[in-house]
Amino acid sequence: MAGKERRRGGGRYPVAAAVELTTKLGPETVPDEFWGEHTSPVARALLSSAVQCFARQGFHATTTRDITAVVGLSPGSLYVHFASKEAVLFHITRTGHERALAALTAQPDDGDCRQHIRRLVAAHVSWHARHHTVARVCQYELAALEPEHAAEVLDLRQRFSAVVRTTVEQGAREGVFDVADIDRTVRAILSLGIDLVRWYRLDGADSPDALGESYAELAARMLGAAGPST
Amino acid sequence: MAGKERRRGGGRYPVAAAVELTTKLGPETVPDEFWGEHTSPVARALLSSAVQCFARQGFHATTTRDITAVVGLSPGSLYVHFASKEAVLFHITRTGHERALAALTAQPDDGDCRQHIRRLVAAHVSWHARHHTVARVCQYELAALEPEHAAEVLDLRQRFSAVVRTTVEQGAREGVFDVADIDRTVRAILSLGIDLVRWYRLDGADSPDALGESYAELAARMLGAAGPST
Repeated sequence: MAGKERRRGGGRYPVAAAVELTTKLGPETVPDEFWGEHTSPVARALLSSAVQCFARQGFHATTTRDITAVVGLSPGSLYVHFASKEAVLFHITRTGHERALAALTAQPDDGDCRQHIRRLVAAHVSWHARHHTVARVCQYELAALEPEHAAEVLDLRQRFSAVVRTTVEQGAREGVFDVADIDRTVRAILSLGIDLVRWYRLDGADSPDALGESYAELAARMLGAAGPST
Repeated sequence: MAGKERRRGGGRYPVAAAVELTTKLGPETVPDEFWGEHTSPVARALLSSAVQCFARQGFHATTTRDITAVVGLSPGSLYVHFASKEAVLFHITRTGHERALAALTAQPDDGDCRQHIRRLVAAHVSWHARHHTVARVCQYELAALEPEHAAEVLDLRQRFSAVVRTTVEQGAREGVFDVADIDRTVRAILSLGIDLVRWYRLDGADSPDALGESYAELAARMLGAAGPST
């Protein structure tokens, strides 16, 4: 059955056709600058290795040895840089959510909520496509966080949703959007970006930006605000 | 750290607010008839226990002891009914996909693709909401299947997508739908149903049927075919 060798060797996706079901993972996925300048080179390497391991086999099935082996260190060396395996997951998850939130808040808002929601959806979708391996860990391993860490990440998630919701509410209030149920519509818009971490591959047919633009149009349609803003 | 006791005790969702991030799981989730009449009562109990374990802690972190303990059997007794832990996952995953596909193909199609796509989306969404725990295992644990099992499940997934795609293509051909990119639009429609296995709870504000109707309208809008069909 599925032994260590098999998981380690990356052979956990044995059927070529099954890539639709998973994410094809490459070691190059997380650029160094992702982790910020206050993270040492060794810590960055451990974080990037952990992203691959967690995305491939899940947090609970990943050992500290799995994480350090890729970097060429002994298992105990992880504790020089992080208090625990959970602390590694928290660093990944918090950084991923901070970066995704920053991608949203960087979008200009000149008060035209039709334009703004398109920019927000395009940024949300293209970020999740571009960083789909980190984003996969951010979405699928949250339940493994310690309570205080989970609370901190949840706060970031609520701030993320609030950015989208504020614009949807503004458009509904101004009569620019036609929204039957704000909660469900915001959830549906967020699902477009989040679900792609399940299936997206960087070597697939869709570039992150093209997918972002396409989904921005679909979101605008959901809001009854299709077509270019005047 | 996250010890066995913690996972076993169901305490893996320690922050009340973090339920948004996970799925609240109850032991009652899978009705007996779900597994079909050819499955013995003990096998059904093992399957239902495995659904809870896999959904809560993932396939790789679940032991055969975890699965049999809930049923009050010894770990070895699992092998009286299933060849392996993977065989249990395959039974769950195949059955889940068959049931979801049957929910789609049961929808009447009188040739009006605006009505048909609404029925398909409502059935897709309400099925995934109603069976969100099984559906979660079906979506998140596919990479743990053996190659021949993965291929069989992938075939079911492709048949599922094809039902939605056929209707979207028909509507586009007839000029009833306005579709810029069929691949992306079909994926986006499917994401609405699939992503809810991440956040949906049966004790939340949305009933499966209400959510299905709501998302059917959003999908119709994505297709440029909102409003009631004549």
